Amino acid sequence: MPHPPPVYLDHNATTPVLPAAVQAMLPYFTTHFANPSSGHSPAAAPAAALRQARRSVQALIGAASEQEIIFTSGGTEANSTALRSALAVMSGRREIVTSAVEHPAILAACDALEREEGVIVHRIGVDGAGLLDIDATRAALSERVALVSLMWANNETGTIFPVEGLAELAHGVGALFHTDAVQAVGKLPVRVQETEIDMLSLSAHKFQGPKGVGALYLRRGTGFAPLLRGGKQERGRRAGTENTPGIVGMGVAADLAVAGLAGALPRVAALRDRLEAGILAAVSHAFVLGNRHERLANTSCIAFGYVEGEAIQLRLDRAGICVSTGSACASGAVEPSHVVRAMRVPFTAAHGVIRFSLSAATTAAEIDRVLAVLPGIVADLRAMTPFWADGAPALPAAGAVR
Amino acid sequence: MPHPPPVYLDHNATTPVLPAAVQAMLPYFTTHFANPSSGHSPAAAPAAALRQARRSVQALIGAASEQEIIFTSGGTEANSTALRSALAVMSGRREIVTSAVEHPAILAACDALEREEGVIVHRIGVDGAGLLDIDATRAALSERVALVSLMWANNETGTIFPVEGLAELAHGVGALFHTDAVQAVGKLPVRVQETEIDMLSLSAHKFQGPKGVGALYLRRGTGFAPLLRGGKQERGRRAGTENTPGIVGMGVAADLAVAGLAGALPRVAALRDRLEAGILAAVSHAFVLGNRHERLANTSCIAFGYVEGEAIQLRLDRAGICVSTGSACASGAVEPSHVVRAMRVPFTAAHGVIRFSLSAATTAAEIDRVLAVLPGIVADLRAMTPFWADGAPALPAAGAVR
Repeated sequence: MPHPPPVYLDHNATTPVLPAAVQAMLPYFTTHFANPSSGHSPAAAPAAALRQARRSVQALIGAASEQEIIFTSGGTEANSTALRSALAVMSGRREIVTSAVEHPAILAACDALEREEGVIVHRIGVDGAGLLDIDATRAALSERVALVSLMWANNETGTIFPVEGLAELAHGVGALFHTDAVQAVGKLPVRVQETEIDMLSLSAHKFQGPKGVGALYLRRGTGFAPLLRGGKQERGRRAGTENTPGIVGMGVAADLAVAGLAGALPRVAALRDRLEAGILAAVSHAFVLGNRHERLANTSCIAFGYVEGEAIQLRLDRAGICVSTGSACASGAVEPSHVVRAMRVPFTAAHGVIRFSLSAATTAAEIDRVLAVLPGIVADLRAMTPFWADGAPALPAAGAVR
Repeated sequence: MPHPPPVYLDHNATTPVLPAAVQAMLPYFTTHFANPSSGHSPAAAPAAALRQARRSVQALIGAASEQEIIFTSGGTEANSTALRSALAVMSGRREIVTSAVEHPAILAACDALEREEGVIVHRIGVDGAGLLDIDATRAALSERVALVSLMWANNETGTIFPVEGLAELAHGVGALFHTDAVQAVGKLPVRVQETEIDMLSLSAHKFQGPKGVGALYLRRGTGFAPLLRGGKQERGRRAGTENTPGIVGMGVAADLAVAGLAGALPRVAALRDRLEAGILAAVSHAFVLGNRHERLANTSCIAFGYVEGEAIQLRLDRAGICVSTGSACASGAVEPSHVVRAMRVPFTAAHGVIRFSLSAATTAAEIDRVLAVLPGIVADLRAMTPFWADGAPALPAAGAVR
């Protein structure tokens, strides 16, 4: 008997490339393979395709000009570029303000800058719902700060930071403002030109474009120092032969995200809410992490007390359901993720965190498949642990959605 | 009447992706799209594909272990990573030895390190045939040198540097040795484990793999500091979700390059020689740049006196023939490339340099199409310049192939 296709609820880790994007990419591997920087006729088609993709990404994030888009190899490169560029151009300023719940691409880069280059890094904490401590942010700001880098939406909980206001706070002390919007772009309306954001990172494979390509938005007039130097590609801001097929694929994914976003969000949120309500009704000692009102429509991060998240993940996988335990980048680690720890999720639940991340293609039938098996899995696993009893103490409220 | 397909003789700029590589990539955009770092079953296929591609690249360059291969977004990233890593791990050493004819991905990165971080950069010159000044290299070496970075083969002239011996020289003063082998891999047999090379950069799109992917070879035991930090991909040496389709495409291109290389080189060299002989027989005041004995089989760089290279390129393009004027990365500039200048090509010829770069698919008929039109193009162009006369002085020998 053939297995049904898996229920893939791990779209914050990565997404399938849209067939239209793959089709659009194909000619640029073969027929239109030329180097867009070359001085002969075959370079014209790939060069035109780059321009079109640049306009598509511009539209996706609401930038004022296509020249504000710098193509990169992905979100990690965009983030590293933003951090190093700010330190290079803001001479005399050697501090960075960021949060304790950023993606590792920000946190590990900040750790290295601190350790190796003496940069002072302020890592602002969050409350039990994952919301940023604004008072602590204000307190960390000074004219020594080169860059404030705060994520738009958290990859694990979906919690949204108020980046528009935070950008204004940063500018109040003359610092630059960068946001890692890798999880926000394609999941939230983004109109960067209506904000004071100076730099913004995005990654194609999070919104059904290909892996290996992303972009850094750089507001016109913002000082910049390249991370990768060499050829004159990207107006001298990012050297290296352009990944034409990847950029074309990102452009098509951006076009379709713009077109599909407004209609998809309410439906995705309704399915996510159906999933959460079903789980909480059937499983005791479980709660949702994050803030209900400031959260991505597609993300649900649930803590199950007295059980290991990895065990739930494995059992769900055997049932054909794909989820994540915290950030995919941290997979393999047995510790709760840095996000779960920053939210001070109680120990009895911190090891049992599962992230469900939906897409516009997720169906009610898929949600119901999860609801059909998950309660039994949790009950089975709890039956095997000495810490569990039907009368186990209720979990504290910290970390619960409000 | 339909045009015949162009004669593409610009393979050092970029190459078409092999159809087999494109086919191998396709499932990793859609069916096997999962994040290889995820903890569920769909991650298994992309994770296995990464391992296989790593072994293919290992075989292509003759590395001792697949763990010595770090996938990057291309040659530029690999080069920047090598430079910065060496400075980070060789504490107390703040000098770099490189050459005046390296690719801009090395030279521009070195310029920035010199200007912004006080690194002392020795740029070793070359002779008229593009051969490195070994005495000057020795003189620049000291225990202050962190890294010697010298290219394996020049992208413009095809001239090959004796990197095996140069690596030994570098080790004589305790420095690391890196080679930008972007133009060598796939065009020369490379057995890195039989050398003392510590790091080697390569780029997939130079050997019929996709753009946007490359690798840095890092000899086991060599100290390393990552350029891109974040997730634990590539054993913590290069963060960012792996570009699975791109890496798979590079792996297949590597397999086919290993299989095809030995048989192809003599045939490619014979076609290149036929091209050169035909041009030199029909066009006066022209000579080949580089060293005949230490040169890539596929590359011919010819200086035409009393004529502009851009004008030749344009006329050839109209005739359906694609060539380059020096490095593609420098296109748009009106100055002779840094390589042509370093070789002290006389002024009357330095502006008329054309690079022909062949592939294993180049045919004798294509070479003959070039030979049918090029002499007339040069004659036409010379007829329009006041500097040209039938009795123009012969060009000096500097830069001529010996």
